[in-house]
Amino acid sequence: MSVAQDILRFETAGRGLTDITSELSVWLARSRLLKGVLTLFCRHTSAGLLISENASIAVQRDLLRWLDRLAPEEGRYEHDEEGPDDMPAHIKAMLTGSALTIPFSSNRILLGTWQGVFLAEHRTRGHRREIVVTAMGE
Amino acid sequence: MSVAQDILRFETAGRGLTDITSELSVWLARSRLLKGVLTLFCRHTSAGLLISENASIAVQRDLLRWLDRLAPEEGRYEHDEEGPDDMPAHIKAMLTGSALTIPFSSNRILLGTWQGVFLAEHRTRGHRREIVVTAMGE
Amino acid sequence: MSVAQDILRFETAGRGLTDITSELSVWLARSRLLKGVLTLFCRHTSAGLLISENASIAVQRDLLRWLDRLAPEEGRYEHDEEGPDDMPAHIKAMLTGSALTIPFSSNRILLGTWQGVFLAEHRTRGHRREIVVTAMGE
Repeated sequence: MSVAQDILRFETAGRGLTDITSELSVWLARSRLLKGVLTLFCRHTSAGLLISENASIAVQRDLLRWLDRLAPEEGRYEHDEEGPDDMPAHIKAMLTGSALTIPFSSNRILLGTWQGVFLAEHRTRGHRREIVVTAMGE
Repeated sequence: MSVAQDILRFETAGRGLTDITSELSVWLARSRLLKGVLTLFCRHTSAGLLISENASIAVQRDLLRWLDRLAPEEGRYEHDEEGPDDMPAHIKAMLTGSALTIPFSSNRILLGTWQGVFLAEHRTRGHRREIVVTAMGE
Repeated sequence: MSVAQDILRFETAGRGLTDITSELSVWLARSRLLKGVLTLFCRHTSAGLLISENASIAVQRDLLRWLDRLAPEEGRYEHDEEGPDDMPAHIKAMLTGSALTIPFSSNRILLGTWQGVFLAEHRTRGHRREIVVTAMGE
């Protein structure tokens, strides 16, 4: 068994989801590892990672609208000095989580047919985001 | 160190929780691995995995009712062509997550006394669900 | 590659967040592992683990208040025999999760600048909580 590890960087275009599935597949292919687990870790508290449907863009829009209603910018927050989108972003990041673990076999990630891996930008404006990718296996 | 990996299949009976703790324990015992981490990954975006109390069935009912209120079928969703239970199922899957990582030692999973591992079916009707199980360790 | 595993115990002071980042760093340093993934697992269903901002205590207070509103003690729950704070605690633990996976390199955890690792106590009173820590890597 061995470990491959890297930091991947993505420029987000503001609030929304970025499908990073193909970047992960390419990176895993280069690692030459056949069987094990891929761990992704987002190094930010106002962005996150999630697995969602890859077929319907309407599903993605519904997920984002639902999160907006659950943690609205108009809410009352003690922490407001970084703008009205900051505290909702922290809440959404807590809900959807900072890390994902995805199994792989034959050097391919074992997502279901309808699953994609998404970087979720929760701030209004775009940011440069760092994702640590670690593959462990044989 | 080595890796053991498999796909376990479960038939769910419709919306609800299925305790899969004993299936996992049996599978881990067969792997013969003594110490490490077990990763579970649900290959669907309308079902998920979660750890919850195993003693009180009322706790499980309360969790499901609370999720129903948070993501109701009566909500307004752009994506509605697969039925009123589909988009709420995607939201619940996002909230509770697709993956679990559970440590093991002496070939036994290190759950707390009151913890069980549950497959959460979020669609109204039963489905055949695939869980990738991966054990890595010594 | 090898595995290091331990159970860390923390006394919480009641509902709130405890920053356990430095305990994890010290434990990882002792493991002598250089590169891999650290897995944390909370062995309780009314406490959890989360990554959040470490700079502003107001962010932490906002997160906790927001969780209180989402799963209030005044809610109607079937399971109420362990007190009004018990079922909300189970809900919060489901939302924030029982486990975290964090990469490390050069024997240091790769958190972002503003990230800390927190044990979230969701019961009103303090409890003794067990966290299984497992480091796998080279």
